[in-house]
Amino acid sequence: MAQQDAQNGAATENSSPTLSFLAFKPQLFVEALKANDAVLFYKNAFAAEEVSRTLNPKRKADQETPLVLSADLKIAGSSFVVATVDDPASLVKNGGNGVVFSLEAEDIEAAIAKAVSAGAVAEGEVVEFEGAYGGRRVGKVTDPYGYVWQISTPVKKSADVEV
Amino acid sequence: MAQQDAQNGAATENSSPTLSFLAFKPQLFVEALKANDAVLFYKNAFAAEEVSRTLNPKRKADQETPLVLSADLKIAGSSFVVATVDDPASLVKNGGNGVVFSLEAEDIEAAIAKAVSAGAVAEGEVVEFEGAYGGRRVGKVTDPYGYVWQISTPVKKSADVEV
Repeated sequence: MAQQDAQNGAATENSSPTLSFLAFKPQLFVEALKANDAVLFYKNAFAAEEVSRTLNPKRKADQETPLVLSADLKIAGSSFVVATVDDPASLVKNGGNGVVFSLEAEDIEAAIAKAVSAGAVAEGEVVEFEGAYGGRRVGKVTDPYGYVWQISTPVKKSADVEV
Repeated sequence: MAQQDAQNGAATENSSPTLSFLAFKPQLFVEALKANDAVLFYKNAFAAEEVSRTLNPKRKADQETPLVLSADLKIAGSSFVVATVDDPASLVKNGGNGVVFSLEAEDIEAAIAKAVSAGAVAEGEVVEFEGAYGGRRVGKVTDPYGYVWQISTPVKKSADVEV
């Protein structure tokens, strides 16, 4: 598909054909202790279908730890995530009142650089998290309209990486 | 698919098989004057694909009126909407810092009643809007976690309706 420069706006279009994303989902953050109730609410209220849930690996050692870390849900074929924060105060501090748009990128550095060159502001560094299904590298940008986008990618196997 | 009552949470599941939604999309509200820039930003920053845009029908009579009313975009096959407000102050007043989750329902009254019975709070009455492609009936609920859901349905032809 040929790209045309937009002629009718202040900004111009410069989409790169190499930038691609594997998934886009809104994440709705809730208090960790309310995650199970929230998943049930979205099932009851909006007939959401639960695709998967990630349980907290620390739960076995400490039964006070909330069980659900996140849950992937679907309504009308579109996905969203019930994600959790341990500290309810961080929901208010967070831009977007708890909504963060999640993008899965093939190349996280290129994706963040591209977003920043388009006018987004990078929030902190790209950090690595260990998860139940392998590590993820995660970065965050805020767009010019105040919305927060989390960009992530699975960590490549470290066997091939030189130290 | 058989529904099972959830045994591990405070709430129980009572999804009705008759409740169905045709579409689910996050709407990102921006100032109407910035809508064109926002669409270009999401194309440039995140390789979003523009599916359609709705232009303001009042624009012809008044060239000061912003042109773009809303735009449907897609990233990685998932849809979102850049929607507009005329008054920037309403972005702050609005719960969700401008994010509203849009659901297209087959039966709007049943959908709102179901959401309210599950714990959501209805915001105002269902109102009818005239649009470029026919009227829509639109209602709004706030969920127990602070997120705002807009539920809408196309208006049925009035020829069959008794007065």
